Amino acid sequence: MVNEVSAALIVIGNEVLSGRTQDANLQYIALGLNEVGVRLKEVRVVTDEEDAIVAAVNALRATYNYVFTTGGIGPTHDDITAESVAKAFGVPLRRDPRAVERLLRQIKPENLNEARLRMANIPDGADLIDNPVSHAPGFHIGNVYVMAGIPRIMQAMFEGVRHSLIGGSRLLSKSVTIYIGEGTIATGLAEIQHRRPDVEIGSYPFNRGGIFGTVIVVRGTDAATVEAAIAEVAEMAEGHGATVEVEAPPPR
Amino acid sequence: MVNEVSAALIVIGNEVLSGRTQDANLQYIALGLNEVGVRLKEVRVVTDEEDAIVAAVNALRATYNYVFTTGGIGPTHDDITAESVAKAFGVPLRRDPRAVERLLRQIKPENLNEARLRMANIPDGADLIDNPVSHAPGFHIGNVYVMAGIPRIMQAMFEGVRHSLIGGSRLLSKSVTIYIGEGTIATGLAEIQHRRPDVEIGSYPFNRGGIFGTVIVVRGTDAATVEAAIAEVAEMAEGHGATVEVEAPPPR
Repeated sequence: MVNEVSAALIVIGNEVLSGRTQDANLQYIALGLNEVGVRLKEVRVVTDEEDAIVAAVNALRATYNYVFTTGGIGPTHDDITAESVAKAFGVPLRRDPRAVERLLRQIKPENLNEARLRMANIPDGADLIDNPVSHAPGFHIGNVYVMAGIPRIMQAMFEGVRHSLIGGSRLLSKSVTIYIGEGTIATGLAEIQHRRPDVEIGSYPFNRGGIFGTVIVVRGTDAATVEAAIAEVAEMAEGHGATVEVEAPPPR
Repeated sequence: MVNEVSAALIVIGNEVLSGRTQDANLQYIALGLNEVGVRLKEVRVVTDEEDAIVAAVNALRATYNYVFTTGGIGPTHDDITAESVAKAFGVPLRRDPRAVERLLRQIKPENLNEARLRMANIPDGADLIDNPVSHAPGFHIGNVYVMAGIPRIMQAMFEGVRHSLIGGSRLLSKSVTIYIGEGTIATGLAEIQHRRPDVEIGSYPFNRGGIFGTVIVVRGTDAATVEAAIAEVAEMAEGHGATVEVEAPPPR
């Protein structure tokens, strides 16, 4: 039986919305979640504004099993994730002595000014998430995991928590590259999808310098079913005269 | 007076949520919108599922001046953007003769099968968006602009429509790089932000191989105000003994 465990990601950052920086966390989190049987089902990129963050946190934590956030947990005035998450949960924000102790591992006491101490303000009832890179912690409260935006720190935090997630059926995927216009095989593809509701078949066309075709990706929780669907797709495409390259199995 | 015109983007694609491909459209659209005075305020990445698309379209078109979507307008069974947008607007999906005519510019009549003709199914009342790359059109209905997901095609569609958008005040930005921990200047930065509500000051810390610091970005609609805020930030940081590099003016 398929047990789907879902997640959403909230990217908090005006710098992504302005186009100044490109998000580098979505893909890492998507792949890492899938390895532990959790499926990323929605991502929202929102501004550094309390209303926007509160609305996204409350909408998504009610809909998905897990919610992750990245960004906005530093010492500056535009870092408002902790207070926004506290507000979303209706709990007070408290200076957390455990978090202060962690800051002191990195910051000399004489440099631990009020701005830096803001990084120890944590919603009441939250547990800390380790930050082995620079010590200022993330936290999780309920099903919401609050992490840094800087990729190296986010990745370290994420690796520390993801094996504690309770995952479901892991989604396997396999692809076949078909060198023919996707419109030629679309009807056959739809028939296979219709016959096989247990897999999800996606078609991703490409045009690489005049060589065009489509990559068909089959995703499902049962390896034999995925393999069978891939074989059907390949056979169907060959029937249309297409050159077909089935993805090699991953190295062991 | 500042006239803010806002936009949201919906990225439709399981392939982005699975981590298989990295979105390449957000940044292009963000920068392009800003040039015509439209600010990207929210992005949602949703699955190729009708309910998810309908919900995102209806939430965002009620909140922002413009909504853009990318992905899901090809000929295969997983391309369901057109019918989902029609459902969101409560209008029928119709086979559009103008769209069929465009498909025939690219596709020989004998190859224009039922699957490919799906690309001519357009919500009633929508206008077509040109696709100079491969002719299969996008469309816009109300304040929603539906575009392809393949970056080269998306970009061509976007360039065709963006100058028809009614923009507001254009957001200017300037940055200063400060080689000191952001916690040291956070209080001074907050004071400048407090005194200058007409600009938005962001702090983006970095650690480049052991050299750390933060990039302060000031955004606002008035060039003189942005310059003045940058000068204040630079002076404040220098007062803390930091090395400061103000972004050079753009080449003329």
